[in-house]
Amino acid sequence: MSVDDLAGHVGEWLRGTGPLSDIVISSRIRLARNVVGFPFLSRASEDDKKEIYRSLGDALSNAGFGSNSFFVDIENISDVDKQVLVERHLISRQHAEGEGSRGVSVSMNETHALMINEEDHLRMQVLRSGLQLDSLWNEIGEIDDRLAAEIEFAFDDDLGYLTACPTNVGTGLRVSVMLHLPALKITGEIEKVLRSAKDLKLAVRGLFGEGTDAIGDFYQISNQVTLGTSEEEIIETFSSDIIPKIVEYEREAREALSEQRSVQLDDKVWRAYGILENARAMASEETMFFLSHLRLGVSMGRFDQLDIGTINELFLQIQPAHLQKLNGGKLSGEQRSIARANYLRERLGNNN
Amino acid sequence: MSVDDLAGHVGEWLRGTGPLSDIVISSRIRLARNVVGFPFLSRASEDDKKEIYRSLGDALSNAGFGSNSFFVDIENISDVDKQVLVERHLISRQHAEGEGSRGVSVSMNETHALMINEEDHLRMQVLRSGLQLDSLWNEIGEIDDRLAAEIEFAFDDDLGYLTACPTNVGTGLRVSVMLHLPALKITGEIEKVLRSAKDLKLAVRGLFGEGTDAIGDFYQISNQVTLGTSEEEIIETFSSDIIPKIVEYEREAREALSEQRSVQLDDKVWRAYGILENARAMASEETMFFLSHLRLGVSMGRFDQLDIGTINELFLQIQPAHLQKLNGGKLSGEQRSIARANYLRERLGNNN
Repeated sequence: MSVDDLAGHVGEWLRGTGPLSDIVISSRIRLARNVVGFPFLSRASEDDKKEIYRSLGDALSNAGFGSNSFFVDIENISDVDKQVLVERHLISRQHAEGEGSRGVSVSMNETHALMINEEDHLRMQVLRSGLQLDSLWNEIGEIDDRLAAEIEFAFDDDLGYLTACPTNVGTGLRVSVMLHLPALKITGEIEKVLRSAKDLKLAVRGLFGEGTDAIGDFYQISNQVTLGTSEEEIIETFSSDIIPKIVEYEREAREALSEQRSVQLDDKVWRAYGILENARAMASEETMFFLSHLRLGVSMGRFDQLDIGTINELFLQIQPAHLQKLNGGKLSGEQRSIARANYLRERLGNNN
Repeated sequence: MSVDDLAGHVGEWLRGTGPLSDIVISSRIRLARNVVGFPFLSRASEDDKKEIYRSLGDALSNAGFGSNSFFVDIENISDVDKQVLVERHLISRQHAEGEGSRGVSVSMNETHALMINEEDHLRMQVLRSGLQLDSLWNEIGEIDDRLAAEIEFAFDDDLGYLTACPTNVGTGLRVSVMLHLPALKITGEIEKVLRSAKDLKLAVRGLFGEGTDAIGDFYQISNQVTLGTSEEEIIETFSSDIIPKIVEYEREAREALSEQRSVQLDDKVWRAYGILENARAMASEETMFFLSHLRLGVSMGRFDQLDIGTINELFLQIQPAHLQKLNGGKLSGEQRSIARANYLRERLGNNN
């Protein structure tokens, strides 16, 4: 298994299944850990990094993460391959753009990604389509236990797990849920929702984490505080309160659109289809914008030319690195726009 | 023959035939005349207007303009019917929006429109597709002669024909050519062309004359000076110099687009098609914008899903009054947008 093998299919985060999957794209839990006896990465030498890389690699292997998983040595793959992993949410941008020894162990179904030498020595991520934080919590707990049996993580009785960035100290937990909120965007109510989220000390980010915009109407909601709250509390609040509330707002906005502005709604959906089906050059961001409207139309049962699975797949395949993989080589920005439009016409069955 | 009978077909100005008709939509010559013995309309009483209306009506009839023509009593038709005449370029906006006795005699093929009580007592217009000012000049001369044999027009030996507005005094002639200049618009060179036109004391207007924007990339070029130049001089300059030059600029811009920016060009054309074929609500102005890009694609032989005749017809039929005629009743702005999108989908063969 290699990065090449990944690129052709849809992966986990856009699978489009699981609870509330019309609005909840995916759920993700991440734990940050550091290995006892090594400095944090900000102060680690290249030799330290190599040693951490080796030690964690051994631990993964001893804990049985060799089978049903594959390991990617990020330092020694191409930029396009790194970007493929980012686009599939298997590594972070920071991890891709970092330097020195680093890698990721990915389970075959892409639900687990164990990043070595990202911001912390180890970042464990589990990811599933739809809203399923409880089962993810069990999964990541099991991974954590298996690894903790092989290697010692830095832990302080008062503070909890020690992490490179103080915001992660404590549980080292980050819970993130990716939502698709096109109706709230169209009605303009999204700002209100985002303000409330910020009041609750939640972080709201775009498709690819920190510093990215909400292109395609994708919003990633994460906890920011890890110290002084239990893991279970955070997950419970997300599962039973925060996410269901936002989902409810989005549903209400969809209902309002279909009752009061159904023509404008259908107009947005069909124009999106008309452009995706006919354009000769498309930038990534506008493609996401139009795919978002198509997804809304399909989710609301107002558009049946495509199924949600195809649209989810398109969201991934039109990303720059995936597109280059599909085309078998590095492309300039302009070439990508043309290749993207060609690919979309082909997938949408337009032979013109 | 009535206004109702007109609305269903394409009329003269968008017929799409005649010399240089890929770029020159239509040519128009207008003469302004006033009847001796009556004040200019700005100072005429309602009784004066009635008397002028009657006298000119008689003159038209005696000169044989009853056969092969039909007469519309503008004072007594609906606003939608007035607007249909404006959209077909058979009367001016001012004529439609005026007050009191006024009318127009229109030839069956819509090449002649003789307006009574517009800004002057009589405005004679002849109109043809493509660039054909010479034959129009013969046509309007013949009309002028036939009428002058029946009624006396105000004429001063020094000044020439007397008109309500000083800019028309002299020959009373206005020559207008409607051009479709989408490539100059796309390349941005249109501003330079328009500046040159203004330096030559030409007026540049939009689709419906004074005070209208160049929607759909239609530009109407007219002379402004009538005093001190002969009719033949004006027509000769338009036919052999001004218009061929602008046509040449547009052709060069089209060539540059197809050589240097062919993907962007095709992209514009196909997106226009995708939107026109799929939208559920369309405003008039954006429809013109997209039809303009389609027309460019067809003219350049880069798009063959439609012929130029259909596109020209759509330019006319999507106008507000024509659309209401097609739908058999008065529609609000929102209803028109929906009706326009429905009509376009039907005409473009989209059954979705």
